Amino acid sequence: MSSKRGAPIREGKAKILYETEPAGDHVIQYFKDDATAFNALKKGQIKDKGVINNAVSTWIFRYLEKQGIATHFVDKLSDREMLVKRVKIIPVEMVVRNRAAGSICKRLGLKKGEPFKTPLVEYFYKSDELGDPLIGEGHIVYFNWATESELKQMTKLTLEVNRHLKGVFHEIGLELIDFKLEFGKDSKGHILLADEFTPDGSRLWDLKTGESMDKDRFRHDMGRVEETYQEVFGRLKQFFEGKL
Amino acid sequence: MSSKRGAPIREGKAKILYETEPAGDHVIQYFKDDATAFNALKKGQIKDKGVINNAVSTWIFRYLEKQGIATHFVDKLSDREMLVKRVKIIPVEMVVRNRAAGSICKRLGLKKGEPFKTPLVEYFYKSDELGDPLIGEGHIVYFNWATESELKQMTKLTLEVNRHLKGVFHEIGLELIDFKLEFGKDSKGHILLADEFTPDGSRLWDLKTGESMDKDRFRHDMGRVEETYQEVFGRLKQFFEGKL
Repeated sequence: MSSKRGAPIREGKAKILYETEPAGDHVIQYFKDDATAFNALKKGQIKDKGVINNAVSTWIFRYLEKQGIATHFVDKLSDREMLVKRVKIIPVEMVVRNRAAGSICKRLGLKKGEPFKTPLVEYFYKSDELGDPLIGEGHIVYFNWATESELKQMTKLTLEVNRHLKGVFHEIGLELIDFKLEFGKDSKGHILLADEFTPDGSRLWDLKTGESMDKDRFRHDMGRVEETYQEVFGRLKQFFEGKL
Repeated sequence: MSSKRGAPIREGKAKILYETEPAGDHVIQYFKDDATAFNALKKGQIKDKGVINNAVSTWIFRYLEKQGIATHFVDKLSDREMLVKRVKIIPVEMVVRNRAAGSICKRLGLKKGEPFKTPLVEYFYKSDELGDPLIGEGHIVYFNWATESELKQMTKLTLEVNRHLKGVFHEIGLELIDFKLEFGKDSKGHILLADEFTPDGSRLWDLKTGESMDKDRFRHDMGRVEETYQEVFGRLKQFFEGKL
């Protein structure tokens, strides 16, 4: 199977998707340094973010596969390129929250850092045009974004991923506050964890200092953005070395 | 049982709730002429709205009771006063939509007037402070606003109310586009349809002209606001005369 880069399929905010050459069952994710926030109202670059996010996603996907979770990951091709299975992305962003942070605080009047007794799952409709609005289970099924059983499966998988990754991040001195996942369906209709897992789409707070170790540093101009991505990369590298 | 007005319990945007004198299992809803829109950013008055809404709600509650739906309605006491059972309001606004109109259009990119194949139910957290944010089924259960079984029951009842009222409004030349319901729990834990059903909390389009016959005339300065409330009142009066 080819792993040479072909024609671009679609450019997103942080990645570009390419066909392989010749085109086949796999496609290539290319991780950019571009960073956006607040539905792309804020734009910038984080040096080497693409390299870090490709490495972090690779480790996380490999680790989750070992825990029995099916992902779209096939291989890491280069610093910024990942070979993945071709899937149809389900247009629902799955968000799990272990503590209140970000949009939910203002929306539901919660205090930043307030812990949830059990992880809270929220759903957002993946639409740049509409600003990824919050949706309920009813919308997902009504608009055929996923069937009831697919939604159930995605929710279950999302909570499993949360259980596994909370442990991983705890080991490297970080608390997993929340994160976003996307799922896709392969040609056989199987649900696969897709997209990425990176500090772009998660909140990680240092267990000792409470500091944000994620894209919030970019969102809120907290400084030391690149250093933070490098730090998370370094800790994960050490943790996963020899394990995958 | 007393139906004399006692101390005020709480003043809302369109109604005031009073104890009876002496206080008991019932309370009194007083319907004001005050009208608000866009989370009370727009404020005004609609002459005799309180009288009309009390009458309309009375007819609708009586009609729904006849169809087997339990409501908090006890009696109409005066032009603006309704005696109702004391309930604990469940802080979830149940919205049913037969066609796209209002907030959902911008939120999900739908065309105004687009019909839904089957009625779409949406949930909002009843909070003036937060601007009644959209919520999902998961939030309702997680935050204990209602149990899963209460939510199921409220959703079922909401769809039943929709079936009944679509028919009623069709008979008087109006299409029921959407509406909001609130439910409460009595001292025994029974779920009762509560609050009100009025042109304040519903969208009614004239079957012939397509004109808005509801609070949208006030929201969007469409003119003939009082005349419209009077017109809906008149048509319902004729329909319900001798039937309740």
